Amino acid sequence: MADTQESLLLKIKEQGDLVRKLKAAKESSEKAKKNNLQYNLPEIEKHLRDYSYICGYTPSYCDIELRNDLGKNIDFEKYKSIKRWWYHMGSFSDFEISLLPRLSPPKVLEKVKDGTTIDQQIQEEVAKLLALKSQLAPAEDAGPQKFTLKTPKGTRDYNPQQMSIRNGVLQKIIAVFKRHGAECIDTPVFELKEVLTGKYGEDSKLIYDLKDQGGEILSLRYDLTVPLARYLAMNKINTLKRYHIAKVYRRDNPAMTRGRYREFYQCDFDIAGQYDPMVPDAECLKVVTEILDALEIGSYVLKVNHRRLLDGMFEACGVPADKFRTTCSTVDKLDKSPWEEVRTEMINEKGISPDAADRIGEYVRLNGGVELADKLLTDEKLSKTKAAVEGLQGIKLLLEYCSLFGIQDKILFDLSLARGLDYYTGVIYEAVLTQPIKIGNEDQTVGSIAGGGRYDNLVGMFDSKHKQVPCVGVSIGVERIFSVLEAKLAAGDITVRTSEVDVYVASAQKNFLEERMKICAELWNAGIKTEQSYKKNPKMLNQLQHCEENGIPLAVVLGESELKRGVVKVRNITTRQEDEVPRDKLVEDLKTRIAALSVKELNGSA
Amino acid sequence: MADTQESLLLKIKEQGDLVRKLKAAKESSEKAKKNNLQYNLPEIEKHLRDYSYICGYTPSYCDIELRNDLGKNIDFEKYKSIKRWWYHMGSFSDFEISLLPRLSPPKVLEKVKDGTTIDQQIQEEVAKLLALKSQLAPAEDAGPQKFTLKTPKGTRDYNPQQMSIRNGVLQKIIAVFKRHGAECIDTPVFELKEVLTGKYGEDSKLIYDLKDQGGEILSLRYDLTVPLARYLAMNKINTLKRYHIAKVYRRDNPAMTRGRYREFYQCDFDIAGQYDPMVPDAECLKVVTEILDALEIGSYVLKVNHRRLLDGMFEACGVPADKFRTTCSTVDKLDKSPWEEVRTEMINEKGISPDAADRIGEYVRLNGGVELADKLLTDEKLSKTKAAVEGLQGIKLLLEYCSLFGIQDKILFDLSLARGLDYYTGVIYEAVLTQPIKIGNEDQTVGSIAGGGRYDNLVGMFDSKHKQVPCVGVSIGVERIFSVLEAKLAAGDITVRTSEVDVYVASAQKNFLEERMKICAELWNAGIKTEQSYKKNPKMLNQLQHCEENGIPLAVVLGESELKRGVVKVRNITTRQEDEVPRDKLVEDLKTRIAALSVKELNGSA
Repeated sequence: MADTQESLLLKIKEQGDLVRKLKAAKESSEKAKKNNLQYNLPEIEKHLRDYSYICGYTPSYCDIELRNDLGKNIDFEKYKSIKRWWYHMGSFSDFEISLLPRLSPPKVLEKVKDGTTIDQQIQEEVAKLLALKSQLAPAEDAGPQKFTLKTPKGTRDYNPQQMSIRNGVLQKIIAVFKRHGAECIDTPVFELKEVLTGKYGEDSKLIYDLKDQGGEILSLRYDLTVPLARYLAMNKINTLKRYHIAKVYRRDNPAMTRGRYREFYQCDFDIAGQYDPMVPDAECLKVVTEILDALEIGSYVLKVNHRRLLDGMFEACGVPADKFRTTCSTVDKLDKSPWEEVRTEMINEKGISPDAADRIGEYVRLNGGVELADKLLTDEKLSKTKAAVEGLQGIKLLLEYCSLFGIQDKILFDLSLARGLDYYTGVIYEAVLTQPIKIGNEDQTVGSIAGGGRYDNLVGMFDSKHKQVPCVGVSIGVERIFSVLEAKLAAGDITVRTSEVDVYVASAQKNFLEERMKICAELWNAGIKTEQSYKKNPKMLNQLQHCEENGIPLAVVLGESELKRGVVKVRNITTRQEDEVPRDKLVEDLKTRIAALSVKELNGSA
Repeated sequence: MADTQESLLLKIKEQGDLVRKLKAAKESSEKAKKNNLQYNLPEIEKHLRDYSYICGYTPSYCDIELRNDLGKNIDFEKYKSIKRWWYHMGSFSDFEISLLPRLSPPKVLEKVKDGTTIDQQIQEEVAKLLALKSQLAPAEDAGPQKFTLKTPKGTRDYNPQQMSIRNGVLQKIIAVFKRHGAECIDTPVFELKEVLTGKYGEDSKLIYDLKDQGGEILSLRYDLTVPLARYLAMNKINTLKRYHIAKVYRRDNPAMTRGRYREFYQCDFDIAGQYDPMVPDAECLKVVTEILDALEIGSYVLKVNHRRLLDGMFEACGVPADKFRTTCSTVDKLDKSPWEEVRTEMINEKGISPDAADRIGEYVRLNGGVELADKLLTDEKLSKTKAAVEGLQGIKLLLEYCSLFGIQDKILFDLSLARGLDYYTGVIYEAVLTQPIKIGNEDQTVGSIAGGGRYDNLVGMFDSKHKQVPCVGVSIGVERIFSVLEAKLAAGDITVRTSEVDVYVASAQKNFLEERMKICAELWNAGIKTEQSYKKNPKMLNQLQHCEENGIPLAVVLGESELKRGVVKVRNITTRQEDEVPRDKLVEDLKTRIAALSVKELNGSA
């Protein structure tokens, strides 16, 4: 099948000659065709079939200029990849555009006179030449990339600092989940598309679909709640207290500076099962308080409300039943907009009568504790509405349980809390920080940091016999917490260590690699977190600098004279104090020092 | 825009009448058209556009029967979704087919006489009816699903037992990584498609692509090595010692019983940077031994070899340079096939001369330690080949460092080790269990459990100036470890706890919910892992059973008479011993008991 080496070499020579001839021909005809030039759309189409942008990995000014030049007069039916690119480029804001790099335009943007050009011919013949060459030798590396590298839009790498922050936060949260006996589950990152269909209302357009490559039709998970419901229904599980920490995916327009990404972590705790009213619901609130206390993120309030009360309130105010949900989502805007604006939207956009809106306005301004629930139970209108009474009784019971849990002073019964999602059926809640967070010299408002509620009908949507498994749960807004801590790190308000190394094995003189390696092995085998330089003869200064930069507290320093006497030096990096320690007592000595350091650290941070 | 309620109701009535008439018409004509029926392909196409299978979520006998009935005489250009389904169904093995459920065939498989049928008419009119109804009331839940639920092919949920096993294994591995000072990073689950292109050779066809929904062209990550290289190049990082534990994705034919999935964990440790030869390479081997020792998974051997030595050996045996890589991948099969088979493949498929193959055969049978390296350095053929000498000197240095690390008896220099991936440039290694693992009464061979090597040219593929960052790393085969432990769990050889609860707060009589809640809050606030029933009046027997099933060691049992005397009972679930403890000393008492239990546990497992 393959040519012999000799015939191949001959073919390559011939093909090379052809390419050179074409290139010469091109050069000589170059000046002749300056007029009436246009973009080579078939080539651009071909290019954009493989690359996201004109310059490859990254959007650049080339894209913007080309889009402006092209206008909308493109046969999008014929040029599907250009269509994708054209609409995608339109999604960039002026600010984003101002940040784009100015890269030099690639070959593909050269204008041509007509369809087939000498450039294309050259390209085709070069391709043949390369194909021939590739038969000659085994395939080399794909070759260096020409373009700026990036992660996909709306995503980011987590570097070691960010991972330290992330792992620290999650560890504290998981400790609380475990204290409450929660089990851990995980689900695939993608689900059959049908599992997600019809669960998110309008937001379904933000779901990431996988390409149909033959086989099942798949989408990336959008949250952790629907996979939980699918898991419970599929395995016929009736009771579960679980936590799930994982990434979810939304094709939203990311506002990454405010901690909103297309790939982001969710951190959920849910209790599934048929139990007595408000007992698991109250525990969810207790869990939130323990987490926010552990994270020491500032003072907060936990707002609670009840979907049945909202329904009853709307009914009592004269809102038609078919407008409950849409009115609810308007009320949900009260945390960001003043009542006047919300009222206008109700009347003009949702078609609520001004009277009804005003009556709603009276209620949603109310917040308080048990006394408010009691007062509303005697309210002329609400007391006649079954749903409202049920909701109020639920809230009363919840508040009672919260005070048994000792968290009553952190709970606020707030009639303006509505929450956006459709699937809630009972209590709803949201934790809000009550003070701005100080980052550097600036105050930053963070807002909602956890939220959830009861959803008793979601699991039944997956069960062939409509069997319901009532659920209540809470989602901790870890991305907001991460971004606050990352901002504090950037402002120099906090520091993080990215490794936990306690001991660095260094040498003052040359030719100590072997001795260093033996000591490292000894320390590793004793469970001591140890590092050394990977260089044969590293400089002493560089080794000490590495310790300082990475917060490594202790260094073992080897020297010829000490080793002859059977001792090594142990250096405290902070105090620079050095002590001689017998070589055969080194592990023991270091363990004592590390224990003392961690006690000191505990006291220091307390 | 919307109709009034009254006119809507009228329309619904009319539409309902129409549907009923059509249904009656269908029934009366049913018998008349028994002959010459065929499948309604347009309807099936429509159905398969939204569903993976004929019966929705899950493949069933319906799919198999329909595929057999249809044969291959379908206009696949016209019926693209049927095409996808048709080829997908062809990928099931006979064994898999034998496991498929027999579901009743849905409406869409009813045969029809011609294109437009009364059924379709009915369907369309019913759709209109539903659309009208949906205007009447706010959208209800999407309604219960009709079909068996499943996770996508080749994926699985991790239930609490599996998560316990997984987290236990990863915790041990991470402890070793941290002991060696590794930092942690994470990257997005998808990358720009271009980042993955040209890195995996033939296996590129196994990459999952995301659907083009406008915007960038994305694929799910295939391993963690290419994202690391992209990360280093993108951020111009020259040195990094990092670990990364995350899921990767391959559209392979899954053999799930043997722990091979389409979504699976990788667990990588890599050292990037320009250092002295073999120093970081030896540390990678040390890390593998510490991990395998910590996992107590049985005895193992760490095979090492060198790509330069393999190249030199092929050269010395007379293999042409363009056949080094392909010969290498044939040698790689020696762990599964005898030499005779490998020899035949070399000669018949790879075109190696019988003489050359026999010479290779002499070498690849060799394994040993430093003495073998020394002997080969004086080998007549190898000593004249630059690459072989370089490789052998590298191996010698590596073995020397390994003995400084005290792991020489776990290392085997093995000339048959080749490893499949193209990108390795230096030392390569693989850990293999040397004994089968006992699961229940059966022995299971596990084979390779970790592997890696040096790849010095990968980062340069991403750098615009070809700048290289030399790397060496190892990947721990955690999925194999998980599946061994899961099999042991299933065989009853090991048990796992899925929660860490130490104390259950129970009550012997009714009406103790409030008291239980107060005690729970007290224990949680003291950091004690505590649970209680979410029922108001749970039965004593059920409460104790819950403790036994979940391995909870202690129960606080509340009783009226005790509480009056200011005491509660503390019960040891295993011994059933009950002690009275003063209510105000409860936290203190429980902490002492928990500490004693964990000491006992440590001694018990040691």
